[in-house]
Amino acid sequence: MTGLVNLKNIVLIGAGNVATHLGLALKDNGYRILQVYSRTIPSASHLAGKLHSDFSTDLEKINLKADLYIISVPDDAVGELVYKIKLKDRLVVHTSGSLPMDILKNSSSNYGVVYPLQTFSKTRKVDFEHIPICVEANSKLGLETLKRFAGTISGDVRDVNSEQRKKLHLAAVFACNFPNFMYSISAEIVKQANIDFSILRQLIKETAEKVMELDPLEAQTGPAKRGDQKIMEKHLEMLKGFPEFKEIYQLLSERIEKGRTK
Amino acid sequence: MTGLVNLKNIVLIGAGNVATHLGLALKDNGYRILQVYSRTIPSASHLAGKLHSDFSTDLEKINLKADLYIISVPDDAVGELVYKIKLKDRLVVHTSGSLPMDILKNSSSNYGVVYPLQTFSKTRKVDFEHIPICVEANSKLGLETLKRFAGTISGDVRDVNSEQRKKLHLAAVFACNFPNFMYSISAEIVKQANIDFSILRQLIKETAEKVMELDPLEAQTGPAKRGDQKIMEKHLEMLKGFPEFKEIYQLLSERIEKGRTK
Repeated sequence: MTGLVNLKNIVLIGAGNVATHLGLALKDNGYRILQVYSRTIPSASHLAGKLHSDFSTDLEKINLKADLYIISVPDDAVGELVYKIKLKDRLVVHTSGSLPMDILKNSSSNYGVVYPLQTFSKTRKVDFEHIPICVEANSKLGLETLKRFAGTISGDVRDVNSEQRKKLHLAAVFACNFPNFMYSISAEIVKQANIDFSILRQLIKETAEKVMELDPLEAQTGPAKRGDQKIMEKHLEMLKGFPEFKEIYQLLSERIEKGRTK
Repeated sequence: MTGLVNLKNIVLIGAGNVATHLGLALKDNGYRILQVYSRTIPSASHLAGKLHSDFSTDLEKINLKADLYIISVPDDAVGELVYKIKLKDRLVVHTSGSLPMDILKNSSSNYGVVYPLQTFSKTRKVDFEHIPICVEANSKLGLETLKRFAGTISGDVRDVNSEQRKKLHLAAVFACNFPNFMYSISAEIVKQANIDFSILRQLIKETAEKVMELDPLEAQTGPAKRGDQKIMEKHLEMLKGFPEFKEIYQLLSERIEKGRTK
């Protein structure tokens, strides 16, 4: 790689949620997906069909003429994969939040990371325009190339190194996976009261909307924040039939209260 | 109360977040707030100024000519208040999630509950149109009257009895207060990594948006849901410096995993 290049032709290695959503966003933005690799024919051909690309289930048949190789497979699989794909100096990236960039050094001398910070589900279309894309590369030129590339599908491209990205990935568990788990507990509680879960949707939405502007610490409300012992006791009493929820209620309330009195 | 009446003139007892947002929504929808009661002159006069109403800090001077009395004070204060306000058969409601309706029986022979299920902050304007309003009354006529009333400010009015409302209030802690607390932990983690909290906002928003359509159980993602022990171990290792977050991570991940294998 000798100058700042436009990445036009792409090979996607992987066909899961991230590869699918990213592939579709790239196709929509005028990129050409040359090939999709996946271990099984159904998944490789399915995504290739959507992207109008070739596909392969054989790592030795990876198309070597692409400008960019995007590895988007489960974290566990990356370490082995990189020994099997030899790309010389072709630019290769992975999309993982928790893997260091250097894991790619056995595949190519030009490598980096393109990590879109979002929760992807098969059934839900995602608008990349507002998704933060965290980029990192092993050279200045690589970084500029990836930033320009990421900037064509998202308005929010950020420099994030491997150490930071690891922490960001952990933070995302608290920002996404755990709140969703809280939603599922609330769903269970209203179900027991014969109330439809839909009653909670606006509250969930507004709770998220609030922190689009406010710092979460400012936005905190509720009995634990107010130190309202009476309500908390009532709630714990109500949770007697749900020992698992009770333990969660107790632990989180204690921590919120502790923050209050700091 | 002898027939289905239109409630036009309202007295607000309380001047906190709920009273303020509800009062403003009522005024915007053509209701006349006759009077605001609060214990202190600054808070009573401040809200009265916004609502173009009279105010009082003396319960003996409550205007007795209103069609509806809305008690919106901290839960702890309601029990004592109702002994001091004698309204005969005027319709009186409280706005509390956790108090039974019957706590009002010492104030009037016509009473009920109007509970807007939302998180209210001083600084943030709220659109009542989509807020579920839970109503209950001690007579059929009262219930019809309150449903019609609530329907003028919200498109989502629901019959919820005291027993259900109590559980709904508990569910709201899991749907709102705890997710927000998770956001604040994620904010703390990215701060330690020198990353601005704004990077997490789209993820938080999308996580909430997902359950506008999906059941939270279907929407669950993340290492615990996948049973990805390696990532969870890495995360716990990273949380060594935050023992309080570590305990929360461990408990919630265990519970998510347990749900997975059910």
